[in-house]
Amino acid sequence: MAAQDFYGSVSLAVSTVIFALKDRALWVPLVRREREPYKGTWALPGGPLSPGRNLPDSALSTLEATTGLTPSYLEQLYAWGNPERSGGDGHVVSVVYWAALSSTPDQEAKGVAWFPVDGLPSLAFDHAEILDYAVARLRRKVAYSRIAHSFMPETFTLTELREAHEAIVGHPLDPANFARQFRSSPALIDTGRHREGTPFRPPRLYRYDSSLTYADDGALARASSAPDDTQDPTC
Amino acid sequence: MAAQDFYGSVSLAVSTVIFALKDRALWVPLVRREREPYKGTWALPGGPLSPGRNLPDSALSTLEATTGLTPSYLEQLYAWGNPERSGGDGHVVSVVYWAALSSTPDQEAKGVAWFPVDGLPSLAFDHAEILDYAVARLRRKVAYSRIAHSFMPETFTLTELREAHEAIVGHPLDPANFARQFRSSPALIDTGRHREGTPFRPPRLYRYDSSLTYADDGALARASSAPDDTQDPTC
Repeated sequence: MAAQDFYGSVSLAVSTVIFALKDRALWVPLVRREREPYKGTWALPGGPLSPGRNLPDSALSTLEATTGLTPSYLEQLYAWGNPERSGGDGHVVSVVYWAALSSTPDQEAKGVAWFPVDGLPSLAFDHAEILDYAVARLRRKVAYSRIAHSFMPETFTLTELREAHEAIVGHPLDPANFARQFRSSPALIDTGRHREGTPFRPPRLYRYDSSLTYADDGALARASSAPDDTQDPTC
Repeated sequence: MAAQDFYGSVSLAVSTVIFALKDRALWVPLVRREREPYKGTWALPGGPLSPGRNLPDSALSTLEATTGLTPSYLEQLYAWGNPERSGGDGHVVSVVYWAALSSTPDQEAKGVAWFPVDGLPSLAFDHAEILDYAVARLRRKVAYSRIAHSFMPETFTLTELREAHEAIVGHPLDPANFARQFRSSPALIDTGRHREGTPFRPPRLYRYDSSLTYADDGALARASSAPDDTQDPTC
């Protein structure tokens, strides 16, 4: 039997690796699969691409369905297309996005749970490989871009910014070196205000200069809003 | 009418931007479209993804059909999926690869012609945008990786390597600075031999240390060979 007969046709899915910082670590939401293959195991949120819908719109809609939140950053990661990757469920090519959130949701959607990237459960399909790749990309990117910005609230102290960097790279950074490097960044603006509720030497509050664009502003710049699809949040 | 009805289903194509150096410039092969939409205009080589076939295998097969050559480098570039991009021919998502060749073919395949990237004809679909993006990626990458290697023959002089870099970035480079920077590279090996047929101070021949891997070895590392498909070389 030719591969073409066995696989029938190629279908396309969009999945999203959603990162947020919590408890000084990097976390991702996963979705428990409700059907075979891999029923009961955890998977990246995603679903089939609806005809007529943009790839980033599909990623944003998955994000909304999974977390109820809007990302501060969205970028196409890679397309995975190995015919064997779908566990007998046909030939599925997944275009994967990664997103950064500046907070985690107060309440989790049904079937969704958050995990620290250093303590992931067993994952369906090739999603462990995809997550590894996404974490590696984020860790590389934080070294040369302002991507940490996407994880921060509107204003923040230098200590909070360093802790965000530490959570992303997964190891401590020298506070003095970090402060020196970031105080000289033209993208970081001193608000003139200080963190309230800290009686002794309250730390300065900074914000990012939003008039500067990212080195790579990813697909979000091209995304337009589209009506929400009803879709299986796993793929 | 809902977008889903209008577009029917999503189909998946793989296209490849194939770069080679010729006459101190960067060239790409394009394929003349034999049917609507955009009949008679030039397009990137590519075709529908056959069920059961890997994405990089599909890119390699397009490359073989278009040039008869095997690439020295192949990397996934990006996936384009705007529903309007196919000119009324349904919703086609194209996963695009880019490849480097160390030579151009002696003879062109039927319907194929090579163009310098600074003198491209009008292109079908969104292929002008895709080509711009591929050229920008290559130019960025040559600054921090050994990607120029992929365009070189087995052995080469420093002048030839500089000319390759100049062809890629599109402007002249300082010969002394270039020589200093590249002589100190651990990846560049002095073969001890000299360019023949140069009577006065024949220049040294270098080769790359192939035991070192690329900073990003792209999808080629994961590609496996697969039987050739008969496919429309444009999409």
